[in-house]
Amino acid sequence: MSASTIEPLRWLGDSLELLDQRRLPAEETYLAYRDAEGVAAAIRTMVVRGAPAIGIAAAYGMALAAQRIGDTRSAAIDWEEALAPALQILAAARPTAVNLFWALAQAREIIRVGGAVAPHLAAWAVRIHREDIANNHRIGAFGATLIAARSNVYTHCNAGALATGGYGTALGVIRSAFAAGNIEHVYAGETRPWWQGARLTSWELLRERIPVTLCTEGAAGWVLQQKNIRWIIVGADRIAANGDVANKIGTYNLAILARHHGVKMMVAAPTSTFDLTLASGAEIPIEQRAAAEITQLHGADLAPPDCDAINPAFDITPAALIDAIVTEFGVIERPSGATIARHFADGRAGQSD
Amino acid sequence: MSASTIEPLRWLGDSLELLDQRRLPAEETYLAYRDAEGVAAAIRTMVVRGAPAIGIAAAYGMALAAQRIGDTRSAAIDWEEALAPALQILAAARPTAVNLFWALAQAREIIRVGGAVAPHLAAWAVRIHREDIANNHRIGAFGATLIAARSNVYTHCNAGALATGGYGTALGVIRSAFAAGNIEHVYAGETRPWWQGARLTSWELLRERIPVTLCTEGAAGWVLQQKNIRWIIVGADRIAANGDVANKIGTYNLAILARHHGVKMMVAAPTSTFDLTLASGAEIPIEQRAAAEITQLHGADLAPPDCDAINPAFDITPAALIDAIVTEFGVIERPSGATIARHFADGRAGQSD
Repeated sequence: MSASTIEPLRWLGDSLELLDQRRLPAEETYLAYRDAEGVAAAIRTMVVRGAPAIGIAAAYGMALAAQRIGDTRSAAIDWEEALAPALQILAAARPTAVNLFWALAQAREIIRVGGAVAPHLAAWAVRIHREDIANNHRIGAFGATLIAARSNVYTHCNAGALATGGYGTALGVIRSAFAAGNIEHVYAGETRPWWQGARLTSWELLRERIPVTLCTEGAAGWVLQQKNIRWIIVGADRIAANGDVANKIGTYNLAILARHHGVKMMVAAPTSTFDLTLASGAEIPIEQRAAAEITQLHGADLAPPDCDAINPAFDITPAALIDAIVTEFGVIERPSGATIARHFADGRAGQSD
Repeated sequence: MSASTIEPLRWLGDSLELLDQRRLPAEETYLAYRDAEGVAAAIRTMVVRGAPAIGIAAAYGMALAAQRIGDTRSAAIDWEEALAPALQILAAARPTAVNLFWALAQAREIIRVGGAVAPHLAAWAVRIHREDIANNHRIGAFGATLIAARSNVYTHCNAGALATGGYGTALGVIRSAFAAGNIEHVYAGETRPWWQGARLTSWELLRERIPVTLCTEGAAGWVLQQKNIRWIIVGADRIAANGDVANKIGTYNLAILARHHGVKMMVAAPTSTFDLTLASGAEIPIEQRAAAEITQLHGADLAPPDCDAINPAFDITPAALIDAIVTEFGVIERPSGATIARHFADGRAGQSD
């Protein structure tokens, strides 16, 4: 089965179907949404997750919100006023992934222009969805140039087709490098507390017969030491102007372990994941999720019922611990404020040629 | 409730009761054993776990084996021949914790001397059990001298009362430092795949009202960075002559993270955990456990059913990443072959005074 068959989001013209990622890999179930409130709830409860996928889902959520208004009112519409609640509820769904705010800022522009807002939003949402997939293929191709023959790599969480419009960022690089014959084996950390590695990354890689071995996050140092890992490859939820990367909790540990073992650290993310308004990672808001995700398992107590737990969903990896950030524009080696500014200037110039 | 009320092992004179650690914290159930085969199975299936506790359980297992023989034969007994199967089955129970082999070597000596072997083995088992608890109080007192006022500390797995005869090694240090008023807060890693942190360490600390917050192992770097941690304190399963430490998988990660953050790393273990016949940690056998501990959860598939997983139960932390090893003899700062040899020479001289 090819990568293109994994569709985390399906747009049906007047509804959005999301593959329920909470039920994978046991069940492949799509849930249908017809309004922004439903899409916001799906983002909040992680039916859909992964920074690029959240951004695309929010775009479709805005298209649905506009359609609902179009259904119920025939007179002239104050679109900015009418869609303000939808913008607000989607923006409040999750705080860390900047792709959500990137998409909503574009939606706000379309709304401000006015006119046939509902079809414009729908066409735009479809466009950024398609562009995300195309960008991931570019990221994959650029990232794969860094992977030498016969490499073992390690990945964390799920930055795959499921986390994006399709194909994936980190897993896009792994798919492309595997297709080029350069990846021998992938080690995937199980990724507590939500098991993205155990449930999602393993499922994606097994579908394409890419050899994958799961491990606990505690075993990462042992794996780097014993399994001749060349690269750790991860996605990102937000990247600051200086190259600091917010990504799934545990990424910062891995970057430190990589440096200790002389393993290289790659972050694969589209430019929509950059937040150049933030000077450094210290300014990135980190979502704190419920303690029950740690203290309970499938609704039953794992820890004593009165036990406290801390559950940051993301951490910040300083740019100094990252060897390469790969975007649809190319590779940023030794990311810094200067190399990132140049990357964006060159990339945008390249696009407008 | 005081620490002394946690009894992982209870000797009833002709049977051994073990607190079933697989069922904690939901249930406090004791299982009774009357022979070495049963005790070996209990060690293998982790009814009892933790290096010192495994050693003590094996000692009682040998006492039970001798009693069973005494029950069934009245004539003169070739004890070495009669007890060889019990020695063998207990030695095969788990490979990494050296306390098991330390106890069985002593049992072999008692058997070789002969005479009233059954009562001798029982008295010896009770003695090493009592000595382990006393040693842990010494370890606690020595370790606590290293903890400055108002310290936050981080611990991994469970090196508590449950992992020992009682009181604990790493948690013994934490208990003693807390009693001295110097520990403000304990962060405990949940410890995949067996959840010793979530299920056991949190349970022990909550019973004594020591403030504890649970986190995923992926959050360890974030916790070290954000929570002003002074020490990571762990136990050990085997320590080589050069100070390399085998301990629960994930310990090596923590030692690297500690060094990166300027946090100190303490290993608390009785001298029975040292294996001075091994030059370095590279010679310590690492138990590989079933992939199903990673790919399944409570018997249901977590990962896709055909997913591969690697499950080393322990890793090796090089001595260079350890700031102090604390034994019942005192503190070994900057452990090395030389400092450890001196520690043993001084400690034994001190004991024979």
